[in-house]
Amino acid sequence: MPRVTVHRKAHFNAAHRIFNKEWSDQKNLEFFGKCSNPNYHGHNYDLIVSVTGEVDPVSGFVMDLSILRRLIKSEIEEAFDHKNLNVEVSEFKKMNPTAENIAVVIYDKLRVKIDEKLDLSIKLYETPRNFVTYSGE
Amino acid sequence: MPRVTVHRKAHFNAAHRIFNKEWSDQKNLEFFGKCSNPNYHGHNYDLIVSVTGEVDPVSGFVMDLSILRRLIKSEIEEAFDHKNLNVEVSEFKKMNPTAENIAVVIYDKLRVKIDEKLDLSIKLYETPRNFVTYSGE
Amino acid sequence: MPRVTVHRKAHFNAAHRIFNKEWSDQKNLEFFGKCSNPNYHGHNYDLIVSVTGEVDPVSGFVMDLSILRRLIKSEIEEAFDHKNLNVEVSEFKKMNPTAENIAVVIYDKLRVKIDEKLDLSIKLYETPRNFVTYSGE
Amino acid sequence: MPRVTVHRKAHFNAAHRIFNKEWSDQKNLEFFGKCSNPNYHGHNYDLIVSVTGEVDPVSGFVMDLSILRRLIKSEIEEAFDHKNLNVEVSEFKKMNPTAENIAVVIYDKLRVKIDEKLDLSIKLYETPRNFVTYSGE
Amino acid sequence: MPRVTVHRKAHFNAAHRIFNKEWSDQKNLEFFGKCSNPNYHGHNYDLIVSVTGEVDPVSGFVMDLSILRRLIKSEIEEAFDHKNLNVEVSEFKKMNPTAENIAVVIYDKLRVKIDEKLDLSIKLYETPRNFVTYSGE
Amino acid sequence: MPRVTVHRKAHFNAAHRIFNKEWSDQKNLEFFGKCSNPNYHGHNYDLIVSVTGEVDPVSGFVMDLSILRRLIKSEIEEAFDHKNLNVEVSEFKKMNPTAENIAVVIYDKLRVKIDEKLDLSIKLYETPRNFVTYSGE
Repeated sequence: MPRVTVHRKAHFNAAHRIFNKEWSDQKNLEFFGKCSNPNYHGHNYDLIVSVTGEVDPVSGFVMDLSILRRLIKSEIEEAFDHKNLNVEVSEFKKMNPTAENIAVVIYDKLRVKIDEKLDLSIKLYETPRNFVTYSGE
Repeated sequence: MPRVTVHRKAHFNAAHRIFNKEWSDQKNLEFFGKCSNPNYHGHNYDLIVSVTGEVDPVSGFVMDLSILRRLIKSEIEEAFDHKNLNVEVSEFKKMNPTAENIAVVIYDKLRVKIDEKLDLSIKLYETPRNFVTYSGE
Repeated sequence: MPRVTVHRKAHFNAAHRIFNKEWSDQKNLEFFGKCSNPNYHGHNYDLIVSVTGEVDPVSGFVMDLSILRRLIKSEIEEAFDHKNLNVEVSEFKKMNPTAENIAVVIYDKLRVKIDEKLDLSIKLYETPRNFVTYSGE
Repeated sequence: MPRVTVHRKAHFNAAHRIFNKEWSDQKNLEFFGKCSNPNYHGHNYDLIVSVTGEVDPVSGFVMDLSILRRLIKSEIEEAFDHKNLNVEVSEFKKMNPTAENIAVVIYDKLRVKIDEKLDLSIKLYETPRNFVTYSGE
Repeated sequence: MPRVTVHRKAHFNAAHRIFNKEWSDQKNLEFFGKCSNPNYHGHNYDLIVSVTGEVDPVSGFVMDLSILRRLIKSEIEEAFDHKNLNVEVSEFKKMNPTAENIAVVIYDKLRVKIDEKLDLSIKLYETPRNFVTYSGE
Repeated sequence: MPRVTVHRKAHFNAAHRIFNKEWSDQKNLEFFGKCSNPNYHGHNYDLIVSVTGEVDPVSGFVMDLSILRRLIKSEIEEAFDHKNLNVEVSEFKKMNPTAENIAVVIYDKLRVKIDEKLDLSIKLYETPRNFVTYSGE
């Protein structure tokens, strides 16, 4: 059977601050610029989750996208949407919520919920001009 | 001379919280939903500033867009970008930073800087699905 | 209080056929081209509903967009999404489902549900290149 | 009958130079910046033509969009696409091809070809961030 | 010579119904939801065809995109645009027209028309939020 | 550490002419069509630069995107923006400025400025419908 990738787009709005807890505010400002503002700023994050596998000959699906949609909703949107990532999302209590790290966290949260036979990839837009991709490598 | 409207798009990223200071967190949650999260959330705001007037026959311009671009940068982006609107923007210390109110504040800040002969209009996208327009009426 | 317009974007996917029931298939084909295909074709319709009014000083809202979102869902999306407009939507049993007529029907369905003090306008994209606007005039 | 506006999107790619022929290259550079480069630069122009009128009860159309599409093709795209606006478009031999002036020229060229009962409006994107609108006022 | 991928975007509008012919309407509704509506629904499909190969040193092209554009028009758009995929496209008389299967059919139809030295890949958007990719694996 | 790709979007507007200097205008017109217009035409080029590497555990970055942004500005935008590619960019004095060749030139200019441990890829949109990708293969 042909191997196809199916993609599902979602989004969440969140506040965050990019900084290293072990550095001073001054050092964070020098290194991370205005992204380290201690009062937080925020983004409309656009998320594309991609799943690759063989097309099932009975359904014509790689994976039922309504299942994927609900999985993204329960695992990612409910955890991240309208939240302060630094304050309210446990993974970022110790880890800097850069786009890179958010993508890795999203991958790890979804990877355990999706059949191992299927490959997984994450694309995360922090803004239309800054975005990241991660495939578990 | 023909009257033409020129539009310039800009953007800023900010954190905010939608709430009424005189209400309890509970009442704010009931009325404003997850937008009232006391830890803030955030958006990539897209802003379109529109200026209407007669085309100057010498330059072919209604208004030099590089002047408008710098005006948006100095008056709006420097005040709002990577800021917490509730905490760091004086206009929202007393006023709820809804998209409606942010658009009115942007209009008021730009109106005093732009020639009275020119009409002004503001379009502000809080998300690609929620946006507002204001023309000073 | 300032008068602001708030906009909410929604979408629905539907099949339709553009034709005049009193004409032959041949005359419909000559006039409406491939849009008159008796087997139907379809579109991803994007809908923008715009509501204009004074900003409420307590909430900072013209209208609660979550109420507008639910209204669009119950009145428009549930009636039109994943439907055959000619066969399953009563308004188009007698009326050709052109973008113009769909916009007028959406306007009429929402107008009776929204406070008379608020102005209403509809923008409907049949494709990214063909779209219509209607404000009840 | 309801009055609806129908919109048709088109595009053309062209080279141009913004300058006043009666000024020196130096004065043009000071006033118009890099847009006055004597070797030309260029844009992908996006054009939206909007026509307002009553919906015809027989066809359900304000105006047949395939007629409007062909009119844009013959009057605008064939004249402007893959052209040097300053050198090859007669209207800009004497007039600076700013977005404002291009919109006015497009309006004038289409106005004479469209039924007087219908209102006409032009939106022209020089870039996604700089655009103009003109309605014949 | 460097190996580059060239991409060409196209689109078609079509009606379809997602269902397994050997199942009852009830079982199809339970499995495929509203996508199985027997009266059909429809989409604006966006298609990106990608061709990879060495850049020709004389033309500077991997493949002449106007040839690719005409190939997409004759092989895909003329077969699918403004059609009912289930009823009018022979490949889907026996196969469910899911986005996955449509992408595989498009790949197979183009693969035989494009030089074997060139790699081919298909991206098909059913909606802006649901899309698939296929590279012949 | 996880390997993530970070993407940064930029843009430049330029004029160009696609032609082979050793061919006659007539042969260029036959082969390249209106793109070979000797008076030039132009585009709004959108550029996405992608850099792949391990996430640094201290910063949470693959590469500081503000460094990448400045690199794109100094190496690409200052060289190409508001320029005539054939006349003013040395690489295209001998090489046809097709999208393929422009992408290869951009890759080569950035490759020498970015740490060898990081992989580099270029995506260049000549128009929203015609674009190319190059990864140095």
